[in-house]
Amino acid sequence: MSQPVKIAVAGALGRMGQAVIQTLDGRADAVLAARFDRPGAEGEHLVSADAALAAADAVIDFTLPEASALLAEAAAARAVHHSHAPALVIGSTGFSDGQLARIDAAATRIAIVRSGNYSLGVNMLMGLVRQAAAALTAQDWDIEVYEAHHKRKVDAPSGTALMLGEAAADGRGVGLGQVADRGRDGVTGPRKEGAIGFSVVRGGGIIGEHSVIFAGESESLTLSHSAIDRGLFARGAIAAAVWVRGKPPGLYDMQDVLGFSK
Amino acid sequence: MSQPVKIAVAGALGRMGQAVIQTLDGRADAVLAARFDRPGAEGEHLVSADAALAAADAVIDFTLPEASALLAEAAAARAVHHSHAPALVIGSTGFSDGQLARIDAAATRIAIVRSGNYSLGVNMLMGLVRQAAAALTAQDWDIEVYEAHHKRKVDAPSGTALMLGEAAADGRGVGLGQVADRGRDGVTGPRKEGAIGFSVVRGGGIIGEHSVIFAGESESLTLSHSAIDRGLFARGAIAAAVWVRGKPPGLYDMQDVLGFSK
Amino acid sequence: MSQPVKIAVAGALGRMGQAVIQTLDGRADAVLAARFDRPGAEGEHLVSADAALAAADAVIDFTLPEASALLAEAAAARAVHHSHAPALVIGSTGFSDGQLARIDAAATRIAIVRSGNYSLGVNMLMGLVRQAAAALTAQDWDIEVYEAHHKRKVDAPSGTALMLGEAAADGRGVGLGQVADRGRDGVTGPRKEGAIGFSVVRGGGIIGEHSVIFAGESESLTLSHSAIDRGLFARGAIAAAVWVRGKPPGLYDMQDVLGFSK
Amino acid sequence: MSQPVKIAVAGALGRMGQAVIQTLDGRADAVLAARFDRPGAEGEHLVSADAALAAADAVIDFTLPEASALLAEAAAARAVHHSHAPALVIGSTGFSDGQLARIDAAATRIAIVRSGNYSLGVNMLMGLVRQAAAALTAQDWDIEVYEAHHKRKVDAPSGTALMLGEAAADGRGVGLGQVADRGRDGVTGPRKEGAIGFSVVRGGGIIGEHSVIFAGESESLTLSHSAIDRGLFARGAIAAAVWVRGKPPGLYDMQDVLGFSK
Repeated sequence: MSQPVKIAVAGALGRMGQAVIQTLDGRADAVLAARFDRPGAEGEHLVSADAALAAADAVIDFTLPEASALLAEAAAARAVHHSHAPALVIGSTGFSDGQLARIDAAATRIAIVRSGNYSLGVNMLMGLVRQAAAALTAQDWDIEVYEAHHKRKVDAPSGTALMLGEAAADGRGVGLGQVADRGRDGVTGPRKEGAIGFSVVRGGGIIGEHSVIFAGESESLTLSHSAIDRGLFARGAIAAAVWVRGKPPGLYDMQDVLGFSK
Repeated sequence: MSQPVKIAVAGALGRMGQAVIQTLDGRADAVLAARFDRPGAEGEHLVSADAALAAADAVIDFTLPEASALLAEAAAARAVHHSHAPALVIGSTGFSDGQLARIDAAATRIAIVRSGNYSLGVNMLMGLVRQAAAALTAQDWDIEVYEAHHKRKVDAPSGTALMLGEAAADGRGVGLGQVADRGRDGVTGPRKEGAIGFSVVRGGGIIGEHSVIFAGESESLTLSHSAIDRGLFARGAIAAAVWVRGKPPGLYDMQDVLGFSK
Repeated sequence: MSQPVKIAVAGALGRMGQAVIQTLDGRADAVLAARFDRPGAEGEHLVSADAALAAADAVIDFTLPEASALLAEAAAARAVHHSHAPALVIGSTGFSDGQLARIDAAATRIAIVRSGNYSLGVNMLMGLVRQAAAALTAQDWDIEVYEAHHKRKVDAPSGTALMLGEAAADGRGVGLGQVADRGRDGVTGPRKEGAIGFSVVRGGGIIGEHSVIFAGESESLTLSHSAIDRGLFARGAIAAAVWVRGKPPGLYDMQDVLGFSK
Repeated sequence: MSQPVKIAVAGALGRMGQAVIQTLDGRADAVLAARFDRPGAEGEHLVSADAALAAADAVIDFTLPEASALLAEAAAARAVHHSHAPALVIGSTGFSDGQLARIDAAATRIAIVRSGNYSLGVNMLMGLVRQAAAALTAQDWDIEVYEAHHKRKVDAPSGTALMLGEAAADGRGVGLGQVADRGRDGVTGPRKEGAIGFSVVRGGGIIGEHSVIFAGESESLTLSHSAIDRGLFARGAIAAAVWVRGKPPGLYDMQDVLGFSK
C-alpha cells in the first residue's frame, strides 16, 4: 500500500473537525498531519494555517464560507510560489456566488473537492438512481422515493429525498417539478405515468433511511441507504481526501470521487 | 391427524369459489365435499344447496349478501330439524343491517365465521398491532402505517392500512380520527406525540405490502405483511373452516380463528 | 399524570448506570432520586445504599451478581422493618443458582423485575413471535429468523436470534434443537416442514437487526426489530421501573412489563 | 412515438412463448407480427419460420439450443440474400460450444441479444452492484448477498445470488471463489476484510428476493430486487427486442440493453 495521505484538519475545534480527527484514528490510508482553527484560536496541538498547508497532502475543511474561500486562495497561492500545495476537501455550505467564484479560481491551481453532503452512500445512491432511471423507462417502471427520519424533523420530504428525486428526474430527462407526486392521500385516481412519488415516515430516533423504488409490473428494484450513526460525513470527507491525492487541478465533487461519469 | 374437514363451496362458479376449490386440492386437513351455486346454475359436479349442506362439515361462502343470509337461515333450520348442520364461513361483503341480523339469529343455532378479509396474515397483523400499541406507550413510541400497492389503485391509504391504524388506535384507547396524520408534506413541524402517521407508495404491479412501525428513540419494531399472490383469501377461508369444526353455535371472526382474546 | 417514579441508580459510576442517569434526564414519568455505587466508591452526588433505598420508589441495578443479591436482601429487609421499601429492576447477568434463590426469596417481600435483556422492542418481539407461531401452523407457515450485526461479532446466529427461535419453537410446542436449520448452503433439498431456519448477515457497523418471517404460500408476515443506538437497554429498564410501582411483591420479567400473559 | 416493433415469437406453443404473446397484448412499443413453432407443429395462427422471419423486426426465441442455432443461421442467411433480416432475442439455455460458435458467426450478419436471464431488474441490479463494488473499497465496505425463495427450492444460494456475488467480486477485481463466505454458523470469528457473505431464507411461496448490502461503519447501502410474478422474463425479452431494432450486427446481452458499458 502507498504512504498514508497526510491530512490537515481545518476548524479542528468544531464539531465536524473533531469528528474527522476521531475518525482518522487507526486508519491505514490516511493520517492526521496537522490541525488548525481560526486565527487566535487556542487548543492543544493547534498550528498555524500556513504550517498546516505545508504539512498536508490534503486539507479537510468543514468551517464557514468565507474561511473556506480564504483557505482555497491561500492554498492556490502556495501552488504558485512553492513546490508543494495541498488539495482541499471542502464541506462548508451556504456560499455566496462571489465565494464560489473564488473557489473556482483556486481550482485552476489546485485540486478541490466540494460537496454539500459527504456521505459516500448517499452520493453512490444518487449516481445509481440516475443511471437506473435512465435505463428503466417511465412506460414500464414507476419511481417512488421513500424516506424515514426521527420525530424532530420539521420538513417533509427530506432534502436528501428531494435530491434523489432530482437524480431520478435527471436520468429521465425531465424536471422534478413537473413529475413530483407528494402527500398522496384520499381518492387519488390511478398513478400517473412518469410521476415520481414521495412518501414520508417520521418517528422516534430514526437517524435517516432513504429508498428509491423502481416498480415494474412483474418485478421491482429498490435502492436504499441507511445511516447507522452520524460519523458518516467525516468518513466520506476522508475518502475524498484519499481519492484527490495526485489529481490535477480542478473542481471535483463526490460523484467524481465515486467514479461516476457525468 | 383427524379426518379432513368436509367442505362445500357456495358460489362454486364464481372467481372466489373457484379459487377455494383449487386451493383445496391436495390438502390433508380439508377436502372438497360438494359444490353448488345459485338455483338453476349449470356446471360440472354442481349439486343442490340442500345436498351440499347435508354433505359438509363446513360451507365456504363468497357470494352475495342476500344469498349468504338465506344460506345461514337454511343451515340453522337444518340444525333444528336434522341431526347434522354444517358450520358456515362467510366472506360476502356489503350486508344490510337486516341481513346481518338474520345471520346473527342463525348463529344462535350454528357456528358461523364472518369476516371482510380472510387473509390470515393481515388478521394476525391486526391482532399483534393492537397488542403492541397497548404495551408501547405513546410517550415513547411513535406509530406509523406504511403501505404499497400497484399503480391502478385509486385510493390512499388502502382500506387495510386504515384497519391497521384503527387496530393501533384501539390498542391505545383513542379514536383514529383524532390522531391520524395523513399526506405529510412540506413544513410539518415536529411530529405530534400520539399521532398515527400514514405513508403510501404506488407503483407497477405491487400486490400489497403493509407495515406498522413502532419507532422509539433507541430502537424500532416493524410488523409487516406482504401478499405473494391473490390466493391468500381462499387459504384463510379454508383455515377458518378447519378451525370452526366442532365449535359451539355463535358468531366468530378471524381474530377468534387466530386465538386473539378480545 | 401521576407523580414521576423516583429512581435510585445502583452502579452509578458504571457504563450502564451512567446511561440510565443520562436517559432519565428530561423524562416526565421518572426522576433521578439518588445514585450510589459499591461501598467506598467516590463520585459526585453519591449517597449510601441505605439512603438510596430510603429515597427511591424503584432501584435500577446493572451491577454484578453478588451485589444484586445483597441489594435484593437489603431492600427486602427494609420491607419488614420500615413502612417503605423500593421495588428493584435488576439487569445484572451471570447469577449462580444460590444468588438466584436469594433474589427469589427477596421477591416474597418486594416487587422485583429481572431480565437479561431490557430492550422493550426485543421483548415485545419475543411475545408476538410466540403468539404468531402458536396460531400459524407449521403445515402452512414456514418460520425463518434473520439477523444482521457489525463485522466484529464473532458468533452466529446472535443470542437474540436464538431466543427468538426459542420463542417460535415454544409457540409451536417443539424444542428448537429438533427443528433448527442453520448455515443453509449447497444442495439442501426442499425445506422441511416445521423447520425454523436461521440466516446471518455481518457487515460494517450494523448495530443489530432481527426479523422473524412467517412465510405462507400466498402471503408472508415479518416481525422485525432494529436497534438505533445502544441506549435501548437503559430506556427499557426505566420503563420497567415505571411499570413496577405499586405492584405486589413477586418476581417479574419483561414479558410481564409488556403485558404478555404466559 | 415511432412505429411499434414487429415481433415474431418462436416456440409459440411453449410456456415462455405463450407468456411473451400474452405480455405483448396492449403494448404501444411492440406488436405481435407472427408466431411459429417447430416444423409440423399445429396451432392456431401458426406460420412457417420463413414467413415469420420475413414479417418481423425481431424474433423472440425461448426454445432449445439446436433450434436457436438453426434460427440464427436462417436469419443470418436472410441478411445475405434479402434486403431484410430480423434481429434475434435468444433466451434458450444449455448451448454447446459449437452451438454458441454458430450463434457468434450469425451475429456478424445480424444483431443478436442473448442472455440466460431476461429479468430487466436483475440485470440492472448486476450492473449497479459491479459499479458500487468498484467504488466502495473493501477496507471500508463489507458486501453481503441475501436471497429468499420458496420452500421447494433445493439449492442455496440461488444461481442469481451467485451471479450477483460474481458481479460484486468482478467490481472488486477478485474471484468470487477466493472471497465467498457461505453458510455462516457457530463461532465464526470477526468478519474477514474483503469477504462476500451469503445468507439464505427459504419459506412458503416467496417468488424471489435478492439484496446486495454494502455495509460501512456509519452507513449502509442496499440494492434489492423482488419478483412480483413470473412474467418478468417475457417483459425483459420484449424490452430487448425494442432496444435491438436498428442496432448494427453483433452479439449483445442485457447489460448492453440497459446501457452499462463493460
